[in-house]
Amino acid sequence: MGTESVMNEQPLKYQVIAKKIEADIRSGVYRAGDKLPSIRHWVTELQVAKNTVINALQQLERRSLVEARPKSGFIVKRVPNYTPPPSPVFGSIQPTSISIPDLLREVIARGAAFDIKPDEPNVPEHNLMSRLYRHINRAMRTQSSRKTLYYDEPMGHEQLREQISRHYARLGLTLPETDLCITAGCQHALLLSLMATCQPGDNVVIESPGFYGAIQLLDELGLNAIEVPCHSVSGLDVELLAKVAAEYNVTACVVTPAFSTPTGACMPDDAKSQLLAIADKHDFAVIEDDIYGDLGFQFRPRPIKYFDKTNRVILCSSFSKSLSRDLRTGWIAGARWQKKIQRLKLVTQLAGSQAVQAGLAEFMASGDYARWLKYRIAQLELQRDELANTLDSTFGTSCRFTYPLGGLSLWLELPGQMDSLRLYHQALQSNTVLTPGALFSSHNDFDHFLRLSFCHPMTKGRREAIAKVSKLVHQSKFKGT
Amino acid sequence: MGTESVMNEQPLKYQVIAKKIEADIRSGVYRAGDKLPSIRHWVTELQVAKNTVINALQQLERRSLVEARPKSGFIVKRVPNYTPPPSPVFGSIQPTSISIPDLLREVIARGAAFDIKPDEPNVPEHNLMSRLYRHINRAMRTQSSRKTLYYDEPMGHEQLREQISRHYARLGLTLPETDLCITAGCQHALLLSLMATCQPGDNVVIESPGFYGAIQLLDELGLNAIEVPCHSVSGLDVELLAKVAAEYNVTACVVTPAFSTPTGACMPDDAKSQLLAIADKHDFAVIEDDIYGDLGFQFRPRPIKYFDKTNRVILCSSFSKSLSRDLRTGWIAGARWQKKIQRLKLVTQLAGSQAVQAGLAEFMASGDYARWLKYRIAQLELQRDELANTLDSTFGTSCRFTYPLGGLSLWLELPGQMDSLRLYHQALQSNTVLTPGALFSSHNDFDHFLRLSFCHPMTKGRREAIAKVSKLVHQSKFKGT
Repeated sequence: MGTESVMNEQPLKYQVIAKKIEADIRSGVYRAGDKLPSIRHWVTELQVAKNTVINALQQLERRSLVEARPKSGFIVKRVPNYTPPPSPVFGSIQPTSISIPDLLREVIARGAAFDIKPDEPNVPEHNLMSRLYRHINRAMRTQSSRKTLYYDEPMGHEQLREQISRHYARLGLTLPETDLCITAGCQHALLLSLMATCQPGDNVVIESPGFYGAIQLLDELGLNAIEVPCHSVSGLDVELLAKVAAEYNVTACVVTPAFSTPTGACMPDDAKSQLLAIADKHDFAVIEDDIYGDLGFQFRPRPIKYFDKTNRVILCSSFSKSLSRDLRTGWIAGARWQKKIQRLKLVTQLAGSQAVQAGLAEFMASGDYARWLKYRIAQLELQRDELANTLDSTFGTSCRFTYPLGGLSLWLELPGQMDSLRLYHQALQSNTVLTPGALFSSHNDFDHFLRLSFCHPMTKGRREAIAKVSKLVHQSKFKGT
Repeated sequence: MGTESVMNEQPLKYQVIAKKIEADIRSGVYRAGDKLPSIRHWVTELQVAKNTVINALQQLERRSLVEARPKSGFIVKRVPNYTPPPSPVFGSIQPTSISIPDLLREVIARGAAFDIKPDEPNVPEHNLMSRLYRHINRAMRTQSSRKTLYYDEPMGHEQLREQISRHYARLGLTLPETDLCITAGCQHALLLSLMATCQPGDNVVIESPGFYGAIQLLDELGLNAIEVPCHSVSGLDVELLAKVAAEYNVTACVVTPAFSTPTGACMPDDAKSQLLAIADKHDFAVIEDDIYGDLGFQFRPRPIKYFDKTNRVILCSSFSKSLSRDLRTGWIAGARWQKKIQRLKLVTQLAGSQAVQAGLAEFMASGDYARWLKYRIAQLELQRDELANTLDSTFGTSCRFTYPLGGLSLWLELPGQMDSLRLYHQALQSNTVLTPGALFSSHNDFDHFLRLSFCHPMTKGRREAIAKVSKLVHQSKFKGT
């Protein structure tokens, strides 16, 4: 497995060792019940300090891969082989106009927090986050009267665009700051992309299941959706896309290739190239949502934009998922539509906050953003395992779910075709917030699915909430509903 | 003149006295060259402290209404009787599709700063502004991890909506916080209003001359503009509006009744009622841009929304002009379209910054916003006089301009139909930024107009820039171009 952490800084030594041992466990070198070699063995074999090995083993323990037993050392635990739900099969794929029921809109509003238990106590502020606030606060006070009387530059803060450009350069993707435009977030970037490329009545390909923000946008802009099945591990089905594009006039395709919501799927690079070949052949715009791209646990996937030779990929992203939802700062690389997108940015938002942008530019330039990503990714990986283990122990083998290599959420298929929207309402009574599958498609194909997030730490309260959901599921199974 | 400062706090005693003496000067009780009664006289007549009278007289001196002469006391200066440009007369008024040339877009980007001399030194930060930053900074750090992981409420921060609701209540306008939605600024609010009320191809009435942001929006949304003449003192010509609405299908009317840009005009209350009667008769939406409403020097005009009995006035505003352009926070009261507008807010922006909104709510609740407005209004009134006096002394009687009672800018008609876009390019060579009349209409009716702002202090550099422009104007007059 190529751990090309191109974008993040070098992982720490103990992390490298933990990954090596994890790979050995997953590939069967060590099996459940096996005793791992002694710490002294690893120190000699790997030529590292004793503490480094201990750190690595402790990480594996936290992730429930091994268990420390007094006097016996570390024993390998059962590693569940999570089964992802199969690829959806649609009776027919054709353009449909969208109309989201008000009921679902409310569910969407609650689901945006990715939190099953919103009343859990607040986590203390991380030191790096305090530094970000200091940068923003300093920027607010610097030349304050100028900022209060002047709007931001039309394309957004130059230093921030430069930092974002460098961020992609480390991935091998050349995006000069003049090709970038700062937006009010990724949703705003998607709005600009669709407004720039489509007219009302046009057909737009979206992933199914896929991000509900895109479905809502199509609804409000009067665009037709063509929902193409999305595999829960490898993402958009490009072969079906080819068929759809041959049959219908497609104007744009909205795709999240890296750790997309709800599944956490990741498109392989050759699928990205195939997607581009289809887009070239049928001349449609590719709108890439890269918002989870920086949250890869083992590698940072290359954006589709990296493979774009015909300047048709519009890249959209933001800091909302990787850093903070309260910064309201995203970006767009508009490809051949860049000029039109800049104009649309001005009429839709006019300007961004100079202070927030300047603070973010400082945060990135100082290396703090890279440090934050490293911390956050390790945290999310741990939380994914905690969630998967909790699901494994509560639901047992009665449901299938994805085990994503990045992002914030996994996709769970309930047993017996049970209605997740009904489950949502039942769970809400005890202030447990589920995100039912119905939100991720305009069809009814995902009514027995849930999105579960590992964005928040697996506290006692969240664990109990999952146990409660599992109980509701089993009760309803016995009732035969 | 009714100085109904309903919304601001009570003016200070010296300000009341200054206004009284000013009214006497403007009405001719005291004429140019007259000596004002002695300080002792005022102390006895008005029953106030000596210092209060001195403060009042010094304010009048700063505003160039009187002059202190050693041993003679205060002498009344010549009070120019500024002549506003006449109401525009259009050959025909009909719906036209808009297409703004790229050249003008660049001019618009520069003009947004309202500053004739952008390289003038920065003004120190005001103490109240520091307090606002402290509020925002504190809000950022409070429950930080919650804010980074949770998006803002769909309608925006509740306390801020409550404060805005109270702000309008002081004007007699009832706008419950549940009728308000926080936006990314006033331009964003205008976007939502037009998206909620219009379909591509619909006719929208706009003021002419009027705000270019509205013209740009119609262009991008594929809406037709019906430009109705706007009088430079009393605003939109409602009689012509009645004719237009009888002749064409009007879907919406975008209007800035209070101190609108570029003229600074203010609609009388009965014109507002007439406008609403027309809207009721022909069933169109009224989109009210109230962004300058809080910046009245003598009174706070009542919004059109105050007179709205049929729930058809959408009120749009923001803190950008009254407080700071860098907060990126505005609001909208969507009337009968509120639900649709909330949905559009979510798909266009998703959320606002909770920290900025919480900081603003604190700033308003503490009374600091009211204090700030009082300070800012006094400053702007002074700067308006400094600008008018500078224009009077440099251009002489060769041009007409408005003398607004609020807002940020005045509207100047150049002599001899000279081309202000050409003047713009000439002035730009010495880094002087003019805002040519061509930006404020899609017709060519304002090519010999300029918008000049009194948003910034009249420094030596800005005074010299105006002198330079005056020189360019006179040179070109002699050349006969």
